[in-house]
Amino acid sequence: MFKPVCRQTVRQLRAASRCQNVGVTKRYMHAPLAFDWKDPLGASNLYTEDELAIAETAESYCQERMLPRVLEAFRNEEYDRKILEEMGELGLLGATIKGYDCAGVSSVASGLITRAVERVDSGYRSGMSVQSSLAMGGIEEFGTEEQKERFLPGMAKGKILGCFGLTEPNHGSDPGSMESVAKPHPTKKGYYSLSGSKTWITNSPIADVLLVWAKLQQTGKIRGFLVEREKCPPGTLETPKLGNKNGLRASITGMIQMDDIPVPHENMFPDIEGLRGPFSCLNSARYGIAWGVIGALEDAIARTREYALERKQFKGNPIAKYQLVQKKLADATTDAAYGILAAYQVGRLKDEGKAAPEMISMIKRQNCDRALVNTRTLQEVFGGNAVSDEYHIGRHVSNLFVTQTYEGQSDIHALILGRAITGIQAFC
Amino acid sequence: MFKPVCRQTVRQLRAASRCQNVGVTKRYMHAPLAFDWKDPLGASNLYTEDELAIAETAESYCQERMLPRVLEAFRNEEYDRKILEEMGELGLLGATIKGYDCAGVSSVASGLITRAVERVDSGYRSGMSVQSSLAMGGIEEFGTEEQKERFLPGMAKGKILGCFGLTEPNHGSDPGSMESVAKPHPTKKGYYSLSGSKTWITNSPIADVLLVWAKLQQTGKIRGFLVEREKCPPGTLETPKLGNKNGLRASITGMIQMDDIPVPHENMFPDIEGLRGPFSCLNSARYGIAWGVIGALEDAIARTREYALERKQFKGNPIAKYQLVQKKLADATTDAAYGILAAYQVGRLKDEGKAAPEMISMIKRQNCDRALVNTRTLQEVFGGNAVSDEYHIGRHVSNLFVTQTYEGQSDIHALILGRAITGIQAFC
Amino acid sequence: MFKPVCRQTVRQLRAASRCQNVGVTKRYMHAPLAFDWKDPLGASNLYTEDELAIAETAESYCQERMLPRVLEAFRNEEYDRKILEEMGELGLLGATIKGYDCAGVSSVASGLITRAVERVDSGYRSGMSVQSSLAMGGIEEFGTEEQKERFLPGMAKGKILGCFGLTEPNHGSDPGSMESVAKPHPTKKGYYSLSGSKTWITNSPIADVLLVWAKLQQTGKIRGFLVEREKCPPGTLETPKLGNKNGLRASITGMIQMDDIPVPHENMFPDIEGLRGPFSCLNSARYGIAWGVIGALEDAIARTREYALERKQFKGNPIAKYQLVQKKLADATTDAAYGILAAYQVGRLKDEGKAAPEMISMIKRQNCDRALVNTRTLQEVFGGNAVSDEYHIGRHVSNLFVTQTYEGQSDIHALILGRAITGIQAFC
Amino acid sequence: MFKPVCRQTVRQLRAASRCQNVGVTKRYMHAPLAFDWKDPLGASNLYTEDELAIAETAESYCQERMLPRVLEAFRNEEYDRKILEEMGELGLLGATIKGYDCAGVSSVASGLITRAVERVDSGYRSGMSVQSSLAMGGIEEFGTEEQKERFLPGMAKGKILGCFGLTEPNHGSDPGSMESVAKPHPTKKGYYSLSGSKTWITNSPIADVLLVWAKLQQTGKIRGFLVEREKCPPGTLETPKLGNKNGLRASITGMIQMDDIPVPHENMFPDIEGLRGPFSCLNSARYGIAWGVIGALEDAIARTREYALERKQFKGNPIAKYQLVQKKLADATTDAAYGILAAYQVGRLKDEGKAAPEMISMIKRQNCDRALVNTRTLQEVFGGNAVSDEYHIGRHVSNLFVTQTYEGQSDIHALILGRAITGIQAFC
Repeated sequence: MFKPVCRQTVRQLRAASRCQNVGVTKRYMHAPLAFDWKDPLGASNLYTEDELAIAETAESYCQERMLPRVLEAFRNEEYDRKILEEMGELGLLGATIKGYDCAGVSSVASGLITRAVERVDSGYRSGMSVQSSLAMGGIEEFGTEEQKERFLPGMAKGKILGCFGLTEPNHGSDPGSMESVAKPHPTKKGYYSLSGSKTWITNSPIADVLLVWAKLQQTGKIRGFLVEREKCPPGTLETPKLGNKNGLRASITGMIQMDDIPVPHENMFPDIEGLRGPFSCLNSARYGIAWGVIGALEDAIARTREYALERKQFKGNPIAKYQLVQKKLADATTDAAYGILAAYQVGRLKDEGKAAPEMISMIKRQNCDRALVNTRTLQEVFGGNAVSDEYHIGRHVSNLFVTQTYEGQSDIHALILGRAITGIQAFC
Repeated sequence: MFKPVCRQTVRQLRAASRCQNVGVTKRYMHAPLAFDWKDPLGASNLYTEDELAIAETAESYCQERMLPRVLEAFRNEEYDRKILEEMGELGLLGATIKGYDCAGVSSVASGLITRAVERVDSGYRSGMSVQSSLAMGGIEEFGTEEQKERFLPGMAKGKILGCFGLTEPNHGSDPGSMESVAKPHPTKKGYYSLSGSKTWITNSPIADVLLVWAKLQQTGKIRGFLVEREKCPPGTLETPKLGNKNGLRASITGMIQMDDIPVPHENMFPDIEGLRGPFSCLNSARYGIAWGVIGALEDAIARTREYALERKQFKGNPIAKYQLVQKKLADATTDAAYGILAAYQVGRLKDEGKAAPEMISMIKRQNCDRALVNTRTLQEVFGGNAVSDEYHIGRHVSNLFVTQTYEGQSDIHALILGRAITGIQAFC
Repeated sequence: MFKPVCRQTVRQLRAASRCQNVGVTKRYMHAPLAFDWKDPLGASNLYTEDELAIAETAESYCQERMLPRVLEAFRNEEYDRKILEEMGELGLLGATIKGYDCAGVSSVASGLITRAVERVDSGYRSGMSVQSSLAMGGIEEFGTEEQKERFLPGMAKGKILGCFGLTEPNHGSDPGSMESVAKPHPTKKGYYSLSGSKTWITNSPIADVLLVWAKLQQTGKIRGFLVEREKCPPGTLETPKLGNKNGLRASITGMIQMDDIPVPHENMFPDIEGLRGPFSCLNSARYGIAWGVIGALEDAIARTREYALERKQFKGNPIAKYQLVQKKLADATTDAAYGILAAYQVGRLKDEGKAAPEMISMIKRQNCDRALVNTRTLQEVFGGNAVSDEYHIGRHVSNLFVTQTYEGQSDIHALILGRAITGIQAFC
Repeated sequence: MFKPVCRQTVRQLRAASRCQNVGVTKRYMHAPLAFDWKDPLGASNLYTEDELAIAETAESYCQERMLPRVLEAFRNEEYDRKILEEMGELGLLGATIKGYDCAGVSSVASGLITRAVERVDSGYRSGMSVQSSLAMGGIEEFGTEEQKERFLPGMAKGKILGCFGLTEPNHGSDPGSMESVAKPHPTKKGYYSLSGSKTWITNSPIADVLLVWAKLQQTGKIRGFLVEREKCPPGTLETPKLGNKNGLRASITGMIQMDDIPVPHENMFPDIEGLRGPFSCLNSARYGIAWGVIGALEDAIARTREYALERKQFKGNPIAKYQLVQKKLADATTDAAYGILAAYQVGRLKDEGKAAPEMISMIKRQNCDRALVNTRTLQEVFGGNAVSDEYHIGRHVSNLFVTQTYEGQSDIHALILGRAITGIQAFC
């Protein structure tokens, strides 16, 4: 139904990248002069034609295939793992990775994919982020060549699902204090024995390969391990689902309980030690979140605008005529437009190797904060009707709160920025 | 288990009210000098001993009997109608009404009851408000003596459940445009025939008596009708439940679909015409909301404080040590304290006949807004854990958003106040 | 021209207080039912008749005598010390002090005086606060009987001006680190020698008696000293004016530079040691600020309302018709009404000996913050005209910013509250 | 002292523009990877080398020559007209105009100039904006060739000063209702007679040529007139200074009072009629404001950061260590970074002919709002010291409030955006 544009663009992009000057942005030529509330500051002028084509593929898929599933998924906390398979068919997973059957697109293109997915639901985007940025991204950046070849092609197709185990029950904002540990396996030679527990792990209950971070007993340093579910002896790995969530209900979240799992040495990442590894993966994921949440906000704007034009009160005027309603729309539209430009800028810098981690802290934090604040304000326009999930706005609000708290709660990123600005640590 | 203090206090209060100077507040004498974060501005000094006793009864019941039910109720959108019966046994329903087996307590006492209930859940408070303020309050204020005697005693006991049908699908903030109509019944003499539909009606699916507002065809004026479910011929009354709500899930909400219901003349309120009737009922309910939402906020404060003291990050410090956390707690505590004083003041004025409707607009709006804003901010303290419903904070956030939009969305009350301040109407 | 109502009321109040039950508030009986934007939650119902009479005297004086002077004073940074003399004639200085020719009124009455003064200008109120709460209040609370008799009657009349020297150039929020010191005088027996410097001291350039806090060398403990300007040998005391302020320009502010001032032993406060002394004075001043800033906010509301009704744009509609303008007025009016109730409550508790210092932190912080935020928002209504000082609103905005930062910046009070709520110190 | 880089760059830029693909941005290649709080999202990567050189010239001039004058200018409301002459010498006036001795730089370069000036003072930037965008820009866009040649070269050098007369005393946000009128002169043939009054006109008291908008009596349409002061008969033109401003005190503002000024026909703009003319000029000025206010915010950030690092409280810790301080810096830095990217994007689109007026409304509004809000928050870090004008922060706060209200108050732009988003007019 959808032609996998990304696959096609792989070749195009590779060809293009050979002759392309890094840093030269080809602007889309035919933007209209008129103001477009869907793209208020003309960001579409900044994308390459390939990027626009990829965005279109992603948008079509998301609106036509994902959107119809989301209400039931959210109501019942059910995640359809086929979604990742479908995305894999379109080349949307691990899309920035070059080689290994991945599309090798620009960071901006991957941002546009993310935005398209989160326009439908932040939970769906979370499921994809984990697969693409955290699991595949981690393997691509830190894995051995053998690990990459073993996992990435299947993951790109959505046949092998991954997850990312960093956060522990008692160590949310402070993963350096983690308690999970890898010791030499007492009986199996060439194996580590992995124990500990992780929580709030998106996709853990359905993951085939779990990228788990644990301290290597010998060194006390954090290392990355690829745990293959089907190779775990019974009783060593449990990944119970965490239900009764009040947000991201269309994604699946769970724990990872590890009780002396034997993991072969060749499943450990070879060189990376300490928090640099997981933080680098998180950086990629956060970059995606910065794009994604604007998608959710844009959906909220579109739905609110439509509601305000249709809803009539007091002498038959649409409530879109009220100043208080227009101001909410103006504020939200502004923040969406600004958020896209900032995410775009960091995307381009990322591909040029110039994106400092604090830049990503900044856009992750600001875009999540503004998406949340504005979506909440827009929700007011729906009055009492907002309580019905069929208007979708409440779902975005619930989801966006979670995006503000995960992968670095807003205040944590504020202090990361504060440290970068002042040179002084304030996590006392 | 709980002695029905309210029944006792009926007599005490009546006795007291005989010798009490209106306007003279007996202060509670033994307040501690030390700052109490649960009562930061010493409001407990303002309550009479009777009021304090009533508050204690209500608090005990709510914490011991209601709280254990709320998680499941919210998850499954199930309302246990026994709750109203239990509250009836304790004398908590229609508590300000004098006579008809009601407790006849002060408006402040009823506010304290409301706060205790909403400390558990805004949905439970909504269920009670509808019974007490909207249905019983309406009958007491506008009903004939016969209507009062027929309904109020059973309603006070929670044996007869009521609801309040004003809002229609296309007329939320503007009930004056309602389409429900009462015509002379074509066949049954002495009866009206009631048709139309109402939506977002708390308790409608379980109500025994439905107070419905409709336009009397002869005059075009809005009148109030008491529709008794068991007397409705089959097919004339449907009250389908509205599910899939994203807030107030522990209350039950539905529509009222009326198709030529025959209603005897004696079930119409005798004198009241126009919007003055329903607005007066709403005023009472809004007054209760102003107290209630502070209860929810106070619960959020207590839970956040506890979490912040227990949750340790970065070198084992409780996160309560962080300035950013303390500021959130300070802000929330301040707004809770201010909100109580304002609600208290309007309560006293109400009993003295001095409470202008705009005062109630003001406290309903401000307390809902501040409860919502602060609870959202407190939720951030829970970080990723906030997503689990077991921390209760997410439930309060969802609920409080609804309280901000119903019975007058915040902006509507802003414009009511704006009109009172400037003399100019801005609902254009 | 103005009869000194306060003098009269001294007697009345003393008589009244003999038979008055502490904690029993006599409500003013004839409040109108209609909503009054100047008193939105009917606070005037709470004041005694004496309090209302005092408020009226103060309001008349301020509007008729102070207001005409303020524009020039603010423009030129000139303070007319006659103002304190005039206030003294009316009995408005040190008004809560019993005896020593002071009025002995309730804390609520003194709050109403403060509000009346700050309705004109926060700088004028600062000048009065320093005289009444900091200087006279300090002497009354901690002075010897001889000190009280020597200074208070003249200060009550505004003949002797006082100031309060606590803050030092390098120790704003942290006075415990002060460097001013009192040593035994090397040559004069029975004298201390006082050295050090204080800054941002309201009234210091015109003060006759300077209450200065310094560390007693022998003990290292902070003590209070009454420095009489006319008795200081030349060259030992300088009180240069600090000009070029961007707020409180109608008050006079300076430094206190002390270079071996000889101060007789009998001018030291007898018992009080440490920060408890100055903090107690500051508490009283802060209580007054909490009332005062609402006066400034109320003036801003009244001026904005008037401007919005007179200013016409787009087809001759007054801008008061715009929803965005009405919302600003509704918000401001609400915060003013809430702020008064909170200040009132703490005032009553204060007179009952039940006001914890954190309560005063709470109302000082919240009322300053809300007065500032709302006045800034109201200023927007004036559009480009706001830049002219003749609309007065810009002056309030500049002043209110200063009130938010002095006597405990907002964040400092947040952390004081945070400590009281959590039990944990966050001034790391 | 400063070499007029702009003159040099004129030639370079013209050469460059011949071979440059519109829409292709040459990125600056050597940006550091490390996070730079002065350029948090790496915007300097986006400027051409010419733009960077222009920015540097402007920054040097502003910091070395303007900054030392600003405190006295602000205190005394004195504007040194030599500033415009100096800027003219450096080629900074009317810099985007091609020909007529103007530099012909890109809109981004002119934005960088504006930012450099407003980093010192919004008043200085206002003086420049009026000369460059409003007066010169108007002549360049709508003037006859003769008018351009007569005025532009002298204006570019700062020898001829211009101003822009649109706003009238009773018509701030609604210039369409203006009352100024041009009639055929009763006695002088070939002349119009101009009457009416304008207010809040930056530079009017010192302007040599006044671009005045008035209704042509014959058509009732608004037309533009170039009024030359030295040719006005005595008594026909008065331009009194408006003093006692609470912001932009370093700029000079006045009225234009016209009493039958004879203006030759050749001084009227030839074709432009209605509000399109002045609005187009305002659009350019607003574009500049969007850059400028970020300069002021950046200065506030730098000063706050420095103060926070130097100011020590509580055990000698710099207050930069406090979480509450770091959060303020993080927020402000984020908004500055976002604001620059948005202004940059609109600048590029402007040069490509793709900038819709609503885009400029959006960036003018948002950047002014955020600059104001953040600078106010940063001011809190200075505590009581903020009141002294020597910290400069209070001056920025006062100025930025004015920028938020002039050339379209924030709410007006919100409604312009609201109309563009919904298609419905809400200026009722």
